[in-house]
Amino acid sequence: MLRFSNEFGLDIESDHVSKVVQRALAQIKNEKESREVGYYTLPDTSLSLTEEVKSIGTDSIEQLVIIGIGGSSLGIKAIDAILRPYSKDTKEILYLENSDPLTISNTLEKIHPNKALFFVISKSGSTIETTSIFKTVIGYHHLDLEGEDAKRVVIITDEGSVLSEFAAHYGLQVFHIPHNVGGRFSVLSAVGVVPLALAGYDMHDLLDGARQMTTRFFDGDAQHILQKAAYLFFQSSKEPMNVLFSYSDTLEEFTKWYVQLWGESLGKINQKGEKVGLTPIGLIGAIDQHSFLQLIIEGPRDKNVTFIKIEDFQKELTIPDISLFAIEKTDFINNQSFNRLINAQCDATMQSLNEAGVTTDMIVMDRVTPSNIGEMLIYFELLTSLVGAMFEVNTYNQPGVELGKQILYKNLGSGDL
Amino acid sequence: MLRFSNEFGLDIESDHVSKVVQRALAQIKNEKESREVGYYTLPDTSLSLTEEVKSIGTDSIEQLVIIGIGGSSLGIKAIDAILRPYSKDTKEILYLENSDPLTISNTLEKIHPNKALFFVISKSGSTIETTSIFKTVIGYHHLDLEGEDAKRVVIITDEGSVLSEFAAHYGLQVFHIPHNVGGRFSVLSAVGVVPLALAGYDMHDLLDGARQMTTRFFDGDAQHILQKAAYLFFQSSKEPMNVLFSYSDTLEEFTKWYVQLWGESLGKINQKGEKVGLTPIGLIGAIDQHSFLQLIIEGPRDKNVTFIKIEDFQKELTIPDISLFAIEKTDFINNQSFNRLINAQCDATMQSLNEAGVTTDMIVMDRVTPSNIGEMLIYFELLTSLVGAMFEVNTYNQPGVELGKQILYKNLGSGDL
Repeated sequence: MLRFSNEFGLDIESDHVSKVVQRALAQIKNEKESREVGYYTLPDTSLSLTEEVKSIGTDSIEQLVIIGIGGSSLGIKAIDAILRPYSKDTKEILYLENSDPLTISNTLEKIHPNKALFFVISKSGSTIETTSIFKTVIGYHHLDLEGEDAKRVVIITDEGSVLSEFAAHYGLQVFHIPHNVGGRFSVLSAVGVVPLALAGYDMHDLLDGARQMTTRFFDGDAQHILQKAAYLFFQSSKEPMNVLFSYSDTLEEFTKWYVQLWGESLGKINQKGEKVGLTPIGLIGAIDQHSFLQLIIEGPRDKNVTFIKIEDFQKELTIPDISLFAIEKTDFINNQSFNRLINAQCDATMQSLNEAGVTTDMIVMDRVTPSNIGEMLIYFELLTSLVGAMFEVNTYNQPGVELGKQILYKNLGSGDL
Repeated sequence: MLRFSNEFGLDIESDHVSKVVQRALAQIKNEKESREVGYYTLPDTSLSLTEEVKSIGTDSIEQLVIIGIGGSSLGIKAIDAILRPYSKDTKEILYLENSDPLTISNTLEKIHPNKALFFVISKSGSTIETTSIFKTVIGYHHLDLEGEDAKRVVIITDEGSVLSEFAAHYGLQVFHIPHNVGGRFSVLSAVGVVPLALAGYDMHDLLDGARQMTTRFFDGDAQHILQKAAYLFFQSSKEPMNVLFSYSDTLEEFTKWYVQLWGESLGKINQKGEKVGLTPIGLIGAIDQHSFLQLIIEGPRDKNVTFIKIEDFQKELTIPDISLFAIEKTDFINNQSFNRLINAQCDATMQSLNEAGVTTDMIVMDRVTPSNIGEMLIYFELLTSLVGAMFEVNTYNQPGVELGKQILYKNLGSGDL
């Protein structure tokens, strides 16, 4: 279980606030019950996937290769990065995301095609990076999709997409993303569950954590989420930036997942034609105390900060009792653990922000478990949906990125760019 | 050489703007000539370091281990990440930065102490993460500083710091950071030059690129920097966020270096007691087209965007002429290179932002060379100094982070946190 605390000081019972909160809550309850939005029920509906994937033979598989970008890779990377240090015998996962020729070349060289299981993940089925890279993998490793190699390609896409048609044509294994689940809300669908379960992670436990959080929320037992959404919405003009300050290197990929979720969901033209949104910023402690912190403390009061702290890293590493000539001043830390140091840094930074008048809240994870990660993922999704409803935007689309795609297609198709 | 273009549409000859620009320029000329600020002359003064380091024997050395955080690691990582794909026989560099017990443990296991050269880098000499990790390395790998191991520890710090005293006591090799060079402006001092030259990078060429840019700037041949600084300053209340959108995975560490430089330098209480500053945001293309881009296009008009494009990646990787059943729509890209695709994505994204009314500018690097990287580093430093002068802040200190340190020391020292 996660523990949540905050310094919002907002009374969500007051008429003004309560009205907005209740309307947003009613909207997302309606999204769930009408099945207009599908991610709310993924903790239940995806459970069967953890059984279904067992039909895919992985005895000879040592590498999973994810070909996907954005919502088709960020969630997988986030969970992989957090859980890997705590997981034994987990298969290696390689990622082919960006259209960067250096990265693609490097990753292609790391692939052992006879020991690899390839996942081609695209909701629409026609993502330019993903299809281009998939073709390059086929060409580079001489994959024969009409022969044995067909067994080692798994397609994850929308039912009826061109990628789905492709999979049917070659008889490839295919898993569908529900139509009512958007890419950046898809981590608990086949997108995340299938590859991560095959890698060896306990996705049953992860979905269980997500289900518990969802149940508590819809049962009215997670008022703190409503309170946070209301604070972020009512302060949005004064505090347009939301910093997620995570005190563990393993959470860096998670902050990238959060940045997509928050930025792409809320940055919209609302029903009144206004440009609205909140800007997500992901930081890692204690590193960014030596970088971004100065700006938060002394710069404009335009940010609030959410801390994530892992109480027990389950890794004993103690600073030895060594005294260095002339540097004895820091000897007070001798015999203490890095676990204690990094968490003390988190607490001290939060306290210094509070004293400077910056609003903060804190999420404490007792230990890193799949269940806790599931809880945290859906917590941020629920928060996003609530704030989106308050902003009166369509939280689930991304119309703004279409123009760039059209320009790209036009420029590349013309042949003389 | 880099090429700079912009859509600022700001007349820096107009009285109003010209006055601010000339005052800022005069200030930084004075900073340089009075030697109050030392980074301007590092491209010259650091040249001798590239010779001095040759006295350090590295024949038996296969790994460089950097123990440092913030300004003591970000610049090294940035250059290392960009140049490594283009460098042969470069020694491996490992980084020990954060107080995260998992990361430290992992990195400790990767070190081969008999083949490693250790760099302890801290301007003040008493950075808590750095001294704690250094002690842990000594303990874990049984380093004997009174014996042979003393040859394999290099100290980089301010003259007169406690770390400098420590080095003298044990007769360790020591390089000093000039007093008038702050941590986040220190990449071209011993901090960056010594380890990167020993790793095998051409730091002479890198310093040469930085020197050329500095000369052009102070000779009045880089008006575009003045124009950009003025735009960012005069638009700062409307556009408080500056996005750096780099189209290459290898530039991710560079964006982190930029975030520290920009955020920590400008986020200050100014001479009038006002909280000022600009918020830096680092993005990587094409990945973040699938994440943050929607917010920039349709969200509040509170951001401007600088693109960085590498014209020639010097890496041939062509999308093969393979047509996939049902996905033929993307066949137009067949036989084109990923180099062309990623740059076409950069151009299309910039064009779509301009059409949406978002102000952009572009930095084009013809190829990745040390000289170009040196030019780019000091370009951002000069820009930072100019904007800092316009904001009337002390660009070079970071008083805001002291309170957190005091709280930490108090809490940890008390023994009963």
